[in-house]
Amino acid sequence: MRDEVKQHAWTQIAEAGVSALSLNAIGKQMGVSGPALYRYFESRDELITELIRDAYSNLADTVRSAYDGGADVVALAQVIRTWALANPQRYLLIYGTPVPDDTIMSVLVDATGGSDRAVSFLTRLHGILSLELAGYFAGTDVDLARLVESEISELVSSDRS
Amino acid sequence: MRDEVKQHAWTQIAEAGVSALSLNAIGKQMGVSGPALYRYFESRDELITELIRDAYSNLADTVRSAYDGGADVVALAQVIRTWALANPQRYLLIYGTPVPDDTIMSVLVDATGGSDRAVSFLTRLHGILSLELAGYFAGTDVDLARLVESEISELVSSDRS
Repeated sequence: MRDEVKQHAWTQIAEAGVSALSLNAIGKQMGVSGPALYRYFESRDELITELIRDAYSNLADTVRSAYDGGADVVALAQVIRTWALANPQRYLLIYGTPVPDDTIMSVLVDATGGSDRAVSFLTRLHGILSLELAGYFAGTDVDLARLVESEISELVSSDRS
Repeated sequence: MRDEVKQHAWTQIAEAGVSALSLNAIGKQMGVSGPALYRYFESRDELITELIRDAYSNLADTVRSAYDGGADVVALAQVIRTWALANPQRYLLIYGTPVPDDTIMSVLVDATGGSDRAVSFLTRLHGILSLELAGYFAGTDVDLARLVESEISELVSSDRS
């Protein structure tokens, strides 16, 4: 039941954004009364929090597995981009909200060799992905996979301390 | 009248996000009927398009003036960051939507010396600002003004062609 609610919630978010998310509307779609639904999620906020947590866990597992499987820093960036393109709403929800980020950041610190570089990895990659997902580069000849590669490989080859 | 509608619209966006924006709700706040309001804006989309265009023009004028006044590439980044922090909804609306971007991109091409660098300027800066505005760095000791400076100054000092 909770899973079914969450499925409907992702559909709503895909169609109209997170601020249009409504437990009552989900109840109607499922043919369940509002009060019945509130037994599963106490509030809209609780639902959103769980959606973000699920999305974060899924991305974090993906990043962790890739790193444990030997991915270097450029490959990690590509893994995150692939995930973001497959799950645009989830990606934007994670990075459009202050989410406690332990797993992903700790992998990035290990992979890049320092917390300053990990922050730059994240901000460079997020800048590209969030603009790509917003459609900013549509109709231009910017090669985004290559931009990710050059931005991230330059980060680890530069003389930062 | 159009300006008053737009003021109310920005307030709604600040409170509940752009997808909650409603011409009827604005009409209620202004004590004007929905149909009367529709004489000024034919649709919600027309209103949003105009809000984005106003926001973009304002940021573009700010960037253009700073560049014409002698700002170097790091100073330009700081000018954009200052504007984004003062106008977070406007900033996120511009870069969360595919907006035709001529002025800002052409200033960045001139300032950085090439279109590849201009794209990197934009994606690096946007990555930092969008995460900063989402509260991602709250409670960390990341110095964001310094991060902007190092990311942008490294961009122009590196050996890219």
